[in-house]
Amino acid sequence: MPATTFHASPRLPRGFRCASRNVGLKPNAKDLALFVSEVDAAAAAVFTRNQFPGAPVTLGRETIRAGRVRAIVVNSRVSNVATGERGIHHARRMAAAAAAEIGTTPDRVLVSSTGVIGVPLPIEKIEQGIRGIARELQDDPLVGAEGIMTTDTHPKALSASVGEATITWVAKGSGMIEPNMATMLVYIFTDARLDASVLDRVLRQAVDVSFNMLSIDSDTSTSDTCAMLANGLAGDIAPDRFVPVLTAGCIRMTEILARDGEGAKHLLRATVRSAASTQEARRVAKSVINSPLVKTMIFGADPNVGRLLMAVGKCFDCTIRPQTTDVRINGHQVVRRGERVDFDDHVVRAALATEVVDLEVDLGVGESDATAYGCDLTQGYIDENAAYYSS
Amino acid sequence: MPATTFHASPRLPRGFRCASRNVGLKPNAKDLALFVSEVDAAAAAVFTRNQFPGAPVTLGRETIRAGRVRAIVVNSRVSNVATGERGIHHARRMAAAAAAEIGTTPDRVLVSSTGVIGVPLPIEKIEQGIRGIARELQDDPLVGAEGIMTTDTHPKALSASVGEATITWVAKGSGMIEPNMATMLVYIFTDARLDASVLDRVLRQAVDVSFNMLSIDSDTSTSDTCAMLANGLAGDIAPDRFVPVLTAGCIRMTEILARDGEGAKHLLRATVRSAASTQEARRVAKSVINSPLVKTMIFGADPNVGRLLMAVGKCFDCTIRPQTTDVRINGHQVVRRGERVDFDDHVVRAALATEVVDLEVDLGVGESDATAYGCDLTQGYIDENAAYYSS
Repeated sequence: MPATTFHASPRLPRGFRCASRNVGLKPNAKDLALFVSEVDAAAAAVFTRNQFPGAPVTLGRETIRAGRVRAIVVNSRVSNVATGERGIHHARRMAAAAAAEIGTTPDRVLVSSTGVIGVPLPIEKIEQGIRGIARELQDDPLVGAEGIMTTDTHPKALSASVGEATITWVAKGSGMIEPNMATMLVYIFTDARLDASVLDRVLRQAVDVSFNMLSIDSDTSTSDTCAMLANGLAGDIAPDRFVPVLTAGCIRMTEILARDGEGAKHLLRATVRSAASTQEARRVAKSVINSPLVKTMIFGADPNVGRLLMAVGKCFDCTIRPQTTDVRINGHQVVRRGERVDFDDHVVRAALATEVVDLEVDLGVGESDATAYGCDLTQGYIDENAAYYSS
Repeated sequence: MPATTFHASPRLPRGFRCASRNVGLKPNAKDLALFVSEVDAAAAAVFTRNQFPGAPVTLGRETIRAGRVRAIVVNSRVSNVATGERGIHHARRMAAAAAAEIGTTPDRVLVSSTGVIGVPLPIEKIEQGIRGIARELQDDPLVGAEGIMTTDTHPKALSASVGEATITWVAKGSGMIEPNMATMLVYIFTDARLDASVLDRVLRQAVDVSFNMLSIDSDTSTSDTCAMLANGLAGDIAPDRFVPVLTAGCIRMTEILARDGEGAKHLLRATVRSAASTQEARRVAKSVINSPLVKTMIFGADPNVGRLLMAVGKCFDCTIRPQTTDVRINGHQVVRRGERVDFDDHVVRAALATEVVDLEVDLGVGESDATAYGCDLTQGYIDENAAYYSS
């Protein structure tokens, strides 16, 4: 696919606006965001597979079934997970408050929450905080992104053009990196006209090669949500033009999330080539990206390349032959046919010290490829996660 | 099963002796150990499932097939992994050197190596170091344990009596905690008389509920080996008396290895009850013990109990119902029917701060139980693993 050019300053597609506020859940930082389309948008979403989904996920599955959404309302600090029937009731009240504020019905509002779990949602503060927020709606997606941040070090938004249309990505978190259940939230807005059913199909395809291949620490949040809204104001865009840009943006946002993983110093990309199947390529790439010993090796820029073979070899059920396995780090071959190459130590150390580290494993047994995205494992991750609840 | 009493000072069974030396692979510390039975012993072993097994594992599978072993020779510092045909040749030379020293044939010698991978084994140093070691053989299993240590903070040996017989466990490492491919090595010696086929069966049963349920960091070594030798000098022991003691010792050694995990401050035991099957109980217990967010929470004694539900819920294919799921920490209930209990924060903090933390998950969907063993995740793990190759 041709390279996608992202706008220097991200912007929302026509008809979309957003706002964010502090409503009193955090001491000072923004903790609530609202994204609104001026007309009903076709909508699709994918949610966490965790078997303890938060109340907003349970409600969101119901909302998205109709395929029409006007607004997304999100709070941080409290995730509304493991809160039982009361949690569902609170999520409904949050949708109703946002609907009243913008003049639509609650079934047109998608709700997300992220933060501590098992704690009741401070619904009165949220309801009060939503009042009047519609007056603050404006065009900069970074304003909305700021309202959904948790341990993110910067707000995350991207946009790109496809013909007359615009696609905008707004996200927070990074896999499970947000302390206390983490949570990745991604919202994609476009003014292209697409059916909800087409939207659902292209979103799943794009997520499959991007956010689903992201792992910071192998932990799966109870609140992960990726939703896409298409309000049609820019008219029809052919899917074969739309999909490559959608996919490129999802991959780029995946890289941004990985690089901002808790404590991370490096973006890691593990590409597996010539696997027996796509499933096996994905499995091996994930195994490499999740290995604590690979991640600490990258943090230390320590060319302990045998750990890469270990991480490949522990995929017991995949077709792996030492004698056909090659490994490269940023293009430098370090393993040939299952044996360590007598490489120049300084060159490989330098490669490992770059901000983006590409680990390429060629299995030599088939024709399937996959890439997984992650980050290194540092003391910063431990520091952030050993006392989140208490701090 | 009745509680097993371990000897206050571990000892080898009759007919077994051991020695250890520095042969020049490490600057000063011991780096070679030899364990010898005065007569051929029935032998069984289980090896790593990693698809890049070290040369000693490949040779060991061949050696163990005959079911007879006289000696085990082990070196640390260099693992002889990813070394191709030359590695196999070196492993054979190591077996031959030990065989010549004690007066047996190379096919009666089991070889293990642990340490950096991809580096040729310094076989001349090892051959030279083995010469004369037979004169130093003696009865204390801790002497042998010392020779196989890597990042272990102490040598690891246990023994217990079964009637007239003794069982002795000698081990090093802790899952994948040894920097650079880690490696768990466990050798079990007994003077009970048992067929190689019986030995193989009881060893696999015991390993299944002990070492196979240990995980320090989810990484699987290319050199893991657990071998058991029975020289028969104490005569027959009924399996129904032998197996409970064997299993208890394997579990105790698993706990010792977990507690000595790199950087670890706590031993974690995750017990899953009332699962739909043993396989699902094991899967969920491993998911809890491997979760970085659970491990950092224990390190920080932070009662962020929702992370336990997250780790259970990410077992997508297991039968899990929020409404029947209860969780206890050292006996204190923190989750009831999928909802966080309003527990006393100080009590749970105190429970998390104890050296041994028992996490109990009752799934309420079946009748199968399993326990997994691990440790917390601390800055010490990062420090030890970010620069092992370089240091």
